[in-house]
Amino acid sequence: MKTLKNRDTLSQIVDCTFSPHNEPIMRVKPGETVVVETWDCFANVVKPGRELAAVLKSGETLYENPVTGPIYIEGAEKGDTLAVQIVDIQVPSMGLTTVMPGFGALEGWLSESPVLTKFVSIRNNLAYYKTENGKEISFPIKPFIGTIGVAPPYESISTVTPHKHGGNMDVQDVCAGNKLYLPVGVEGALFAAGDVHAAQGDGEICGTAVEVPASLTLKFELLKHKTIEWPRIESEDEIMTVSSAKPLEDAARLAYRELIRWLGEDYELSPYDAYMLLSLTAKARIAQIVDPLYTVVAKFPKALIKP
Amino acid sequence: MKTLKNRDTLSQIVDCTFSPHNEPIMRVKPGETVVVETWDCFANVVKPGRELAAVLKSGETLYENPVTGPIYIEGAEKGDTLAVQIVDIQVPSMGLTTVMPGFGALEGWLSESPVLTKFVSIRNNLAYYKTENGKEISFPIKPFIGTIGVAPPYESISTVTPHKHGGNMDVQDVCAGNKLYLPVGVEGALFAAGDVHAAQGDGEICGTAVEVPASLTLKFELLKHKTIEWPRIESEDEIMTVSSAKPLEDAARLAYRELIRWLGEDYELSPYDAYMLLSLTAKARIAQIVDPLYTVVAKFPKALIKP
Amino acid sequence: MKTLKNRDTLSQIVDCTFSPHNEPIMRVKPGETVVVETWDCFANVVKPGRELAAVLKSGETLYENPVTGPIYIEGAEKGDTLAVQIVDIQVPSMGLTTVMPGFGALEGWLSESPVLTKFVSIRNNLAYYKTENGKEISFPIKPFIGTIGVAPPYESISTVTPHKHGGNMDVQDVCAGNKLYLPVGVEGALFAAGDVHAAQGDGEICGTAVEVPASLTLKFELLKHKTIEWPRIESEDEIMTVSSAKPLEDAARLAYRELIRWLGEDYELSPYDAYMLLSLTAKARIAQIVDPLYTVVAKFPKALIKP
Amino acid sequence: MKTLKNRDTLSQIVDCTFSPHNEPIMRVKPGETVVVETWDCFANVVKPGRELAAVLKSGETLYENPVTGPIYIEGAEKGDTLAVQIVDIQVPSMGLTTVMPGFGALEGWLSESPVLTKFVSIRNNLAYYKTENGKEISFPIKPFIGTIGVAPPYESISTVTPHKHGGNMDVQDVCAGNKLYLPVGVEGALFAAGDVHAAQGDGEICGTAVEVPASLTLKFELLKHKTIEWPRIESEDEIMTVSSAKPLEDAARLAYRELIRWLGEDYELSPYDAYMLLSLTAKARIAQIVDPLYTVVAKFPKALIKP
Repeated sequence: MKTLKNRDTLSQIVDCTFSPHNEPIMRVKPGETVVVETWDCFANVVKPGRELAAVLKSGETLYENPVTGPIYIEGAEKGDTLAVQIVDIQVPSMGLTTVMPGFGALEGWLSESPVLTKFVSIRNNLAYYKTENGKEISFPIKPFIGTIGVAPPYESISTVTPHKHGGNMDVQDVCAGNKLYLPVGVEGALFAAGDVHAAQGDGEICGTAVEVPASLTLKFELLKHKTIEWPRIESEDEIMTVSSAKPLEDAARLAYRELIRWLGEDYELSPYDAYMLLSLTAKARIAQIVDPLYTVVAKFPKALIKP
Repeated sequence: MKTLKNRDTLSQIVDCTFSPHNEPIMRVKPGETVVVETWDCFANVVKPGRELAAVLKSGETLYENPVTGPIYIEGAEKGDTLAVQIVDIQVPSMGLTTVMPGFGALEGWLSESPVLTKFVSIRNNLAYYKTENGKEISFPIKPFIGTIGVAPPYESISTVTPHKHGGNMDVQDVCAGNKLYLPVGVEGALFAAGDVHAAQGDGEICGTAVEVPASLTLKFELLKHKTIEWPRIESEDEIMTVSSAKPLEDAARLAYRELIRWLGEDYELSPYDAYMLLSLTAKARIAQIVDPLYTVVAKFPKALIKP
Repeated sequence: MKTLKNRDTLSQIVDCTFSPHNEPIMRVKPGETVVVETWDCFANVVKPGRELAAVLKSGETLYENPVTGPIYIEGAEKGDTLAVQIVDIQVPSMGLTTVMPGFGALEGWLSESPVLTKFVSIRNNLAYYKTENGKEISFPIKPFIGTIGVAPPYESISTVTPHKHGGNMDVQDVCAGNKLYLPVGVEGALFAAGDVHAAQGDGEICGTAVEVPASLTLKFELLKHKTIEWPRIESEDEIMTVSSAKPLEDAARLAYRELIRWLGEDYELSPYDAYMLLSLTAKARIAQIVDPLYTVVAKFPKALIKP
Repeated sequence: MKTLKNRDTLSQIVDCTFSPHNEPIMRVKPGETVVVETWDCFANVVKPGRELAAVLKSGETLYENPVTGPIYIEGAEKGDTLAVQIVDIQVPSMGLTTVMPGFGALEGWLSESPVLTKFVSIRNNLAYYKTENGKEISFPIKPFIGTIGVAPPYESISTVTPHKHGGNMDVQDVCAGNKLYLPVGVEGALFAAGDVHAAQGDGEICGTAVEVPASLTLKFELLKHKTIEWPRIESEDEIMTVSSAKPLEDAARLAYRELIRWLGEDYELSPYDAYMLLSLTAKARIAQIVDPLYTVVAKFPKALIKP
């Protein structure tokens, strides 16, 4: 199995983009499985003894959301769909959460604007958070890939931003066992991923989750001549669509419109049947409201209908 | 046990509001349980043989979202909190779903703007939806109260609109077994409810759910001198806050801010501990994006921390 | 000529609304001219020696945006339009501007959140503002009525909020010489006004303008069976529509849609001719982005076309 | 004087971007004046006898918003400001306005969704528009550059989108006589322009203005080590800032924040003096609400204060 180290992307982590202009650093055939090593959202520079406030103060470059890649998928062309089976996500025994000026859904709504770094230890699939007054609070982890995507057709988009190409969507359903579909925009697709979260609440409101470096096992497939507009996800129980926009209601509308299309393409539902059925049965998760565009994932239960 | 029939509210169903100016039609003491009979969102006028298009065409008044009440809660004063234990919700064997011009999250995004009425039969806790091409799709019902609230301190707010007083929130967690907290705005609280949904997807995107008349069993309690800003809900597993605003991200922000307050009041979490923990563990459901203000419910799992 | 003193409204200035439930304190016939005395937005309680910070600290009630009225217009019924000719606006020799926590378009974006009161003297149609470092900056005043409206059909709306009934629109074109059209919602219209600004920038971004009490001379006319959806204004040179919504682009869309209607009703322009001509020639002013809904006024030059 | 023909950019008009990756096609020294020939927003392919509907139907590529450039400015580096004096804008005797599905501020709000092309003749500084029912309506032209900007620091942004680098701002004040300031993002700045409008209303609501090819006379100057965040404009009477965001109120807030900075840098006003003075005296124009981000220009009158 091929392995892609995050160090292989070192030259690209400053001003990191999903872009047709980035040089691929690995080539993969449809059907292949690859292990991809990823940085955390700060390129692993914040650590015990080197908190975020110290890094900011030092003037050292704070890499924003580096991804590992791009991987060139042989045979992929604009108008195809890249399917990424997420086989496994391995995370370390510690992650971190931060609060930063200029970032976060409630910035300016709470009384201060501090720089905070909180290290969260991880063991036996539980994360342990220690409060200011010394309590330890534990909760289950559910690792997923925060930033994952392909090159857009002609724009170069910062890895901080989510859009049609994927990117910084922060959707918890991009987890082991699920399959992510991405719209290929350029020859070779130019896939990349990073920014794994060991756990995250809906909205990611303080601007960060349990941020971790990780090791991903990904299997790539190619759906030739299958065109989608926004990323889609399939789990055992649900089909899902992911859209990113501002304001947040537009993200929801776009995700539902894409889901109506999917229900038409594969489940023979008319637009208005799909519209009403979604109004009666769908789930919609606010993935994040802290990145340059906000992300909603809309979900339809597969139990209701056969393809 | 007292029973309040929807007919008792007949004089108020035109231009229906939550208002300090409405005359109470029943008085209840804290601790009492009441059965409240409610209309569906069209005051039960749309039925088989009398579809929405026919009603609209006839020029007959289409009552919008009538509620049953108001109920005067003895001893309630501005600054208190009214707790409503939802003991039971009984629904009939048929509900209806409609699509209407000028309403719905995807209006203008789909190719036509029809008036549609779809009757949905209900049996054994399942709803049955029949598609245009004759398939029958079934899904579990989970009845909840779509519109429920008290009089605001001095404004009169249409029953179509959700806000701090409750109103047309369309939150699926206002269901049997859960407790809803509402901020008392005037003497006697002036509680009312209606618009029950047998089932609803997140967003209620076509503008309606499985709309039903219903019979509610509600137990009222009063928390004297306990002041909250937005409605709160408690289930066995979660504490939740409900906010309504535009754009949708503001509803999410307000709900999370109220949840941070709750975690401070009852769980001894500092604002920034709460902010980060919610960023790591909270759920946020888009309740609806079709009413005059949009509604988000934010949730924190009680398993994580003891009060 | 009748005169309405602001003292006549004393009983209503707490929890002030535009409401069908408010008792009229004067009756006027169409064609009559009335002098209306108005408070400033704080009911004249903030003054030299009694700055806003002191009022807030004292716990004294801070009246929010009191209006003088309501005035019952004889013969007015729901579905009519009330035309208000603004004959004159007299302002005193001093106004005030404040910055307040929880208010203002850039709250949380500037480094502090102070409470500030700035007195602005007015002489010879110029306002004089003194900076922190002692410079005096003068600019022309252009007094207008910030809050003006009628009772909505059945809701009671705080005087802080603008909507279809008028209210706290803060539109600079509601000035002497112009005519304002308001949609009558209830019998008698129940007109009221207040919150005059001697001068205001677009957006009213710090949350206040040059706030003054004032004396208005208003002439009322009634357009029977003429129905409009949003307030309209006519000056010598322009026809204008005013809409209030969130987000701000919706206020702009609604104002333009109302202007397209007006161009269809009175100028024989088809919807698409009006749409394109507005795209080529209209003006749109951001009136305010600080009230509960935001206001845009859209304008079409009368020189282009004859009614 | 150097002249840059739009034909020189032919290789770049498909998938047109402002991008660090575009190859400059001309080099200019600070102080030089250049004549730049620009396409209209459809690359001049729509013309009498070849209306938009026919082009769309033919499947022919519809170039979106091509710009002429990039021009490499000698000595320009990231962190500098490029000043562009707009000396002259020459427009032809005919422009065009279109309505297109999927575009326009009121799409889905009017009854149909047609494809329309309207040719507008221009003579003696007046534009002549012919209505469906045969009336001719004339109005003054005021040509300005709709799309103008430099390469962003590392992203590649479609020429359809406005942002910090300039781009498709559609601000009427980018007209002859005024000076535009742009934040240099990369070595050489990589300036380009196109999409001239002979006239445009605020909001550009149908999605187009009077679209024309044009000949621009531009003089470039470089402000070394002067850093700005958003484009700025200076006219004889006003200083202005231009921001693009969604929702529209965020564009207004960002523009005002940049204007507060400018008033601090050059006019010795404290942030709160600037905040209050803008609240009392500023103008804010809605430039457009049809592009991927919406644009507001905020203005302060120079008469009030000396630099």
